[in-house]
Amino acid sequence: MPTLILVRHGQSQWNLENRFTGWWDVDLTEKGVTEAIAAGELLAAKDLLPTIAFTSVQLRAIKTLHLTLEACGRLWIPETKDWRLNERHYGGLTGLNKAETAEKHGAEQVHIWRRSFDTPPPPLEKGGQYDLSADPRYAGIPIPDTESLKLTIERVLPYWESTILPELTKGETVIISAHGNSLRALVKHLSGISDDEITGLEIPTGEPIVYDFDDAMQPGERHYLKDR
Amino acid sequence: MPTLILVRHGQSQWNLENRFTGWWDVDLTEKGVTEAIAAGELLAAKDLLPTIAFTSVQLRAIKTLHLTLEACGRLWIPETKDWRLNERHYGGLTGLNKAETAEKHGAEQVHIWRRSFDTPPPPLEKGGQYDLSADPRYAGIPIPDTESLKLTIERVLPYWESTILPELTKGETVIISAHGNSLRALVKHLSGISDDEITGLEIPTGEPIVYDFDDAMQPGERHYLKDR
Repeated sequence: MPTLILVRHGQSQWNLENRFTGWWDVDLTEKGVTEAIAAGELLAAKDLLPTIAFTSVQLRAIKTLHLTLEACGRLWIPETKDWRLNERHYGGLTGLNKAETAEKHGAEQVHIWRRSFDTPPPPLEKGGQYDLSADPRYAGIPIPDTESLKLTIERVLPYWESTILPELTKGETVIISAHGNSLRALVKHLSGISDDEITGLEIPTGEPIVYDFDDAMQPGERHYLKDR
Repeated sequence: MPTLILVRHGQSQWNLENRFTGWWDVDLTEKGVTEAIAAGELLAAKDLLPTIAFTSVQLRAIKTLHLTLEACGRLWIPETKDWRLNERHYGGLTGLNKAETAEKHGAEQVHIWRRSFDTPPPPLEKGGQYDLSADPRYAGIPIPDTESLKLTIERVLPYWESTILPELTKGETVIISAHGNSLRALVKHLSGISDDEITGLEIPTGEPIVYDFDDAMQPGERHYLKDR
């Protein structure tokens, strides 16, 4: 039976520091490493072993994938890294501390930027500290200067349809290691969640979320492997 | 300019224990991890940054690749894992200590098995401890029961020609993380080494070997990045 496993990367250094991260490339903390290994051990314990893997081009998701796969004895499966699974681009908020930003712009405005479905934050400053236009990993890619969740969905879903869903249709057990918002995009689509509700849905770090697909390739209820 | 970087995996647990390993899946030691990271740091220091990666389906080579790429800031490049880059299959010698095997069969016989170009060791016992026929990573793959270096070359070179060389032709900087004998196969081909000489050529662990290719896709002299 085709099965989809979603894993949000473990804690990153900027999760810990409560800073907006987006496309900036931040490493896992020790806790994040532990979470990723635990995710793999849980897959092994439940005998739910991925046969093909997808991840973003961001360090925290790639490392989470590798640690998870190694912990379940599956580091040898094919893996594809693609920018369309990247985190939502947080624009001009990138690098800012969330509490400080709330002090500066007001909690209400920050809440809108974080939780509005279609209002993107202000754009990232060109040529500034967090400008990625010279990063070779994004050569030839239309790097956004900011994204709402809606804009994030608009790049995640075509990739899902064109590249990941066909693997499920072949009967593969697919694992996707990605980010809070790129995974929200998938969960919204697969679980039919409304625009208003999806922005408040928390995707826990390092806890595998599973969808089983039926013969007509309809996803069942999403469920966690871990007892919660 | 197209460039090829070869890296032999860092020290594995069975390298340390002086056992024949072949296709058996053995992890890196702490020293092996350190070697892999040092390889990546050297690539970064020399500003020789891979753009696409290939490795075997064996843990020690995959982990070496990941550690090397992370250390040079390139964990995000595409990577392909293929069994044709696996170590030479050591047949019935798999798991045996090299010194004990020499005591049992004679040093001369072991030398022939290790260093003959075309004499494979005795075949692996079917159903024994090291039989990989039930391993899902080799499902649908013609698992050998033993290999000479000649037989190893016969599966490495077609993969090189069909899959890796075309990436170099596109101008990529290719890194291959693999094993003593799968890398011997490539070095023999690229440096035009005779059957007799290749079996004695040592490929050091964790030291990047580099070939630059000219416009006609002819490889230059192989060289080490590290001062030796």
